[in-house]
Amino acid sequence: MLLNAEKCWLPFLSDHCPRTFSPVEEARVELEEMGANARLQVEESMQDAYRIEKDGEGYVIYGGEKGVLYGAYQLLEKMYLGQCPCCGETKPAYGLRMLNHWDNMNGQIERGYAGNSFFFKDSRFCWEEERIRFYGRMLASCGINAISMNNVNVHYPADRLCTEELLPEVKKIADVFRAYGVRLIISVDYALPVTLGLDTADPLDERVQAFWEKQVDLIYSYVPDLCGFLVKADSEFRPGPYMYKRNHAEGANLLARALKPHGGVLIWRCFVYNCRQDWRDHSIDRPKAAYENYAHLDGQFEDNVILQVKNGPYDFQVREPVSPLLYAMPKTCKSIEFQLAQEYTGQQIDLYYMAPVWHEVMDQLPALPLHIAAVTNLGNDENWTGHTLAQANLYAYGRMAWQGKGFDGVQVLKDWIGLTFGPDFTERDRLESMMLSSRSTYEKYTANLGLGWMVTPHSHYGPDAEGYEYDFWGTYHRANCRFVGIDRSDKGTGYIQQYPEELARLYNDPATCPEKMLLFFHRMPYDYVMKDGRTMLQRLYDDHFEGLAEAEKLLEDWQAMEHALPEKDYLHGLARFQQQVKNARNWCDRMNTYFYRFTLIPDARGRRIYD
Amino acid sequence: MLLNAEKCWLPFLSDHCPRTFSPVEEARVELEEMGANARLQVEESMQDAYRIEKDGEGYVIYGGEKGVLYGAYQLLEKMYLGQCPCCGETKPAYGLRMLNHWDNMNGQIERGYAGNSFFFKDSRFCWEEERIRFYGRMLASCGINAISMNNVNVHYPADRLCTEELLPEVKKIADVFRAYGVRLIISVDYALPVTLGLDTADPLDERVQAFWEKQVDLIYSYVPDLCGFLVKADSEFRPGPYMYKRNHAEGANLLARALKPHGGVLIWRCFVYNCRQDWRDHSIDRPKAAYENYAHLDGQFEDNVILQVKNGPYDFQVREPVSPLLYAMPKTCKSIEFQLAQEYTGQQIDLYYMAPVWHEVMDQLPALPLHIAAVTNLGNDENWTGHTLAQANLYAYGRMAWQGKGFDGVQVLKDWIGLTFGPDFTERDRLESMMLSSRSTYEKYTANLGLGWMVTPHSHYGPDAEGYEYDFWGTYHRANCRFVGIDRSDKGTGYIQQYPEELARLYNDPATCPEKMLLFFHRMPYDYVMKDGRTMLQRLYDDHFEGLAEAEKLLEDWQAMEHALPEKDYLHGLARFQQQVKNARNWCDRMNTYFYRFTLIPDARGRRIYD
Repeated sequence: MLLNAEKCWLPFLSDHCPRTFSPVEEARVELEEMGANARLQVEESMQDAYRIEKDGEGYVIYGGEKGVLYGAYQLLEKMYLGQCPCCGETKPAYGLRMLNHWDNMNGQIERGYAGNSFFFKDSRFCWEEERIRFYGRMLASCGINAISMNNVNVHYPADRLCTEELLPEVKKIADVFRAYGVRLIISVDYALPVTLGLDTADPLDERVQAFWEKQVDLIYSYVPDLCGFLVKADSEFRPGPYMYKRNHAEGANLLARALKPHGGVLIWRCFVYNCRQDWRDHSIDRPKAAYENYAHLDGQFEDNVILQVKNGPYDFQVREPVSPLLYAMPKTCKSIEFQLAQEYTGQQIDLYYMAPVWHEVMDQLPALPLHIAAVTNLGNDENWTGHTLAQANLYAYGRMAWQGKGFDGVQVLKDWIGLTFGPDFTERDRLESMMLSSRSTYEKYTANLGLGWMVTPHSHYGPDAEGYEYDFWGTYHRANCRFVGIDRSDKGTGYIQQYPEELARLYNDPATCPEKMLLFFHRMPYDYVMKDGRTMLQRLYDDHFEGLAEAEKLLEDWQAMEHALPEKDYLHGLARFQQQVKNARNWCDRMNTYFYRFTLIPDARGRRIYD
Repeated sequence: MLLNAEKCWLPFLSDHCPRTFSPVEEARVELEEMGANARLQVEESMQDAYRIEKDGEGYVIYGGEKGVLYGAYQLLEKMYLGQCPCCGETKPAYGLRMLNHWDNMNGQIERGYAGNSFFFKDSRFCWEEERIRFYGRMLASCGINAISMNNVNVHYPADRLCTEELLPEVKKIADVFRAYGVRLIISVDYALPVTLGLDTADPLDERVQAFWEKQVDLIYSYVPDLCGFLVKADSEFRPGPYMYKRNHAEGANLLARALKPHGGVLIWRCFVYNCRQDWRDHSIDRPKAAYENYAHLDGQFEDNVILQVKNGPYDFQVREPVSPLLYAMPKTCKSIEFQLAQEYTGQQIDLYYMAPVWHEVMDQLPALPLHIAAVTNLGNDENWTGHTLAQANLYAYGRMAWQGKGFDGVQVLKDWIGLTFGPDFTERDRLESMMLSSRSTYEKYTANLGLGWMVTPHSHYGPDAEGYEYDFWGTYHRANCRFVGIDRSDKGTGYIQQYPEELARLYNDPATCPEKMLLFFHRMPYDYVMKDGRTMLQRLYDDHFEGLAEAEKLLEDWQAMEHALPEKDYLHGLARFQQQVKNARNWCDRMNTYFYRFTLIPDARGRRIYD
């Protein structure tokens, strides 16, 4: 068998994970497993960094405690790939390289597409040490160093994870992850003081401050290296400081001050917006919300607060501009948040390799945030990620978090294919090409030109052009028989003015605005002439048809790989590519019909649009 | 207190229902409770009929076993209303006057808007004898003589209602209902033979026939007067004879033959259509389905089969033409099915008195079907029906089932108001006028001119113009920037040709087609000029605005009745009328915007349409 989906990109490790208790020990064991001729030289000051030098017939890995573990993986991977593992000192671009699980304690995962939680079941902890240890190795192998296990929407009994009731259990799993250099984050419920008996959770109330100090002291007595808290406050019906008329600096500082003496951080999500908007009201523009809620608070946060900002101003759509908040608040520590779970981008059924999204963000930002986070795409499916090829997103995310601006999504993909499919795999180029084009394909057959949100309500899989058009989430395109899109220029909602001047100028003019985001930034007539001479409407039609054809090509490509893959893996992928073609056809036909019904303008090339 | 919502239109009965065991005994007890000077004269041959004559200071009620019970109610009601109860012989228009509960054994009611089941809970029978006896009185008081307790979508363990496992429980409740002249119907699962161990449910298989014979013998040993079975087969994913390539006569006759020796009937729903339609496919037209599935089978059904046909060809929309199947199949016994549960018509929040719908049907049909059924609007809410005013629909349904073509929805409403709100109620006229106009109001602010289906998917409350437009249920309007509606004429899908010639001619021409169903039968341009000179689009706008204004007027009217009502009842209604105004505003604004975005034609009277 070429492919061992359970072991992901780590086929060279043993089938069973020995118990280890520190990254250095873990590194040693792994090197032994692989029979690598290498020794470790720990230099505390190097921290996460490492370098690998030749040493006679073997190698020396220099690094901090965790650095040598990361170095060991570098060495093991390169050996497996038949490449030289030597490298000068390499260190990560981001300090905290985080994964956020959205696992509920009932075992379900919010927006999870790979089965249920491997941490929780039936409202209690429920995990196999073997699997968790292997997961620790996966994380260490791509450099991820912190995870939150529980959903940011904290439902009972997950709100008890930071109380005496569940801390003994948290400690047990923290002890396991420690060997892999992975620290735990707890998603906490801002209203916990009220849940546990106080009459308020007001951050300026001394009793509340005392409550959290005591609570945090307790937590650190169980888990002395806890990374910190993650909080979703005042967002989508979660409690928060706004309930007490306090701003979010006051709200976050409450928890940050309690965490600080223990070296913990407070990660505060900036996903705050009016989720009770009336579609009739054009005065509110949801993408403006994060900036409006936070930008003016720059300088007011404790230095152990990390503001976690989604990559775009909306919510993980197929294409969004970079959130303007990421350019703002120079005095505030920030983390950028991505979503590996393909909530709006195919749900780990449709192929969607995310590196292009990350490149776009990093190309744009003058200085990167200090930390990075991603919502996982993991569950208890045998292959971890539903679609086996979705494993690449986790691996590449870790690499990207390490490499930062130097991230090379093509090389990382080559590595991932080499590791996952093994040295004898004959279809590397084909698979690489499928994956590299996958995001563009998905974008074409769905809501292109920056439209977004034309998805089936609730499930978010499949097309529904007006599914969110009259809802209260603030996600409108206001298509009519002549125009589509929202004018966010200085003549419209003014959203564009949240960007630095140069970018704002670029976006403000449809002629200079990147065409792939045209309808995100501008309200345009269907007969608007694009740079290549096509009308905007024809471009929409063309993209939909092309996207469908490309999805069909993906299926064909997969079928062509039948004999290069073990039958089980082939059939697993086949079912997904077949479903993707169905999905693409639905999108193509429904989107075309949607715009055709507004315009009655047929396709210029005479292709069938249903009426 | 004026209003006793728990006792509905029967305030004159005692608070507790004594145990009785036959209709005659029950009639005596009720007359006693009211202190009525009346005696009963049972004449078996009169069956359900009765007549009331003066007898000195008192009265004599002549009638069959059940007839005297119905007569007793006539007398009690008239006395309470201060009217003379005497009448010549009166007998019901329909033989079986049925109610269908859609109660699941887990306690939930499919499309129930008045709480949970009062028969079932936690997958078992769970009922209070007191409440069931009162329910029996409600049924008897309006002449309903058969009910099915379990949902036509038969989920486990309701499929066991006709097996040894649950029959002892069925017997107990049948024994209670017997006193009120009410017979039980069981909704059965066509695949029961397979569930219980056979390898087929093929109606032509002798083992299947033997299975049902034996099963029915068993059932009647518990409930010797069981009315029969109700079956939803080959419909919305239910099993049925089509699975075995048998037609529905073969399918129904299987059960009918087993029931016949016991005097039972087999009620077979004709709600069969392709619920996996592709919206791209214009060749299928769902309203044609019932006729296509059944009309050619006329004469092939056993004489104890009753085909139960929904009043319209779709599914209980606010306005539909009468189902063409009701004009067809002269040799087949039919029942017409209505829905008191306001699934698509306000869900017992929005006011919706249904008599106008029934009048439309009866005015149209040359000969009425022999039997009648309605899906109930009942649940375990204190007032039985969610909105207290929705009780009127149950009462009026019973009266309509008795009176047939002579049904007078205005007089029945007057009676219901008099009985329910008592002799001192000062707002009879206002309430009557609110209720009589309520259906027209609802129609105006929702999907008017026969459009239908523009509802929120799944919940069916609130507007969503394209909610079902691309789904697989076959419910499309195909609105574009110039036209809306489906052409069902002889130039279109041909649906109209299923009607008798005269009606077909009427419907076939937009000029003669009733305007309220214009867009059901025809695909029309927005600038089509209606009889009164308005364009069709302006008529849509006007109706929406008028409907909203009328909903606001309903709220005002209710508020004006504050002092005429007990506070609890006033507030109960107030919350619903406030919600109705919100709903009407949503409908009005969203529907107007929907059509405005297609046309960019503003309202002729300058009213605000959101863009």
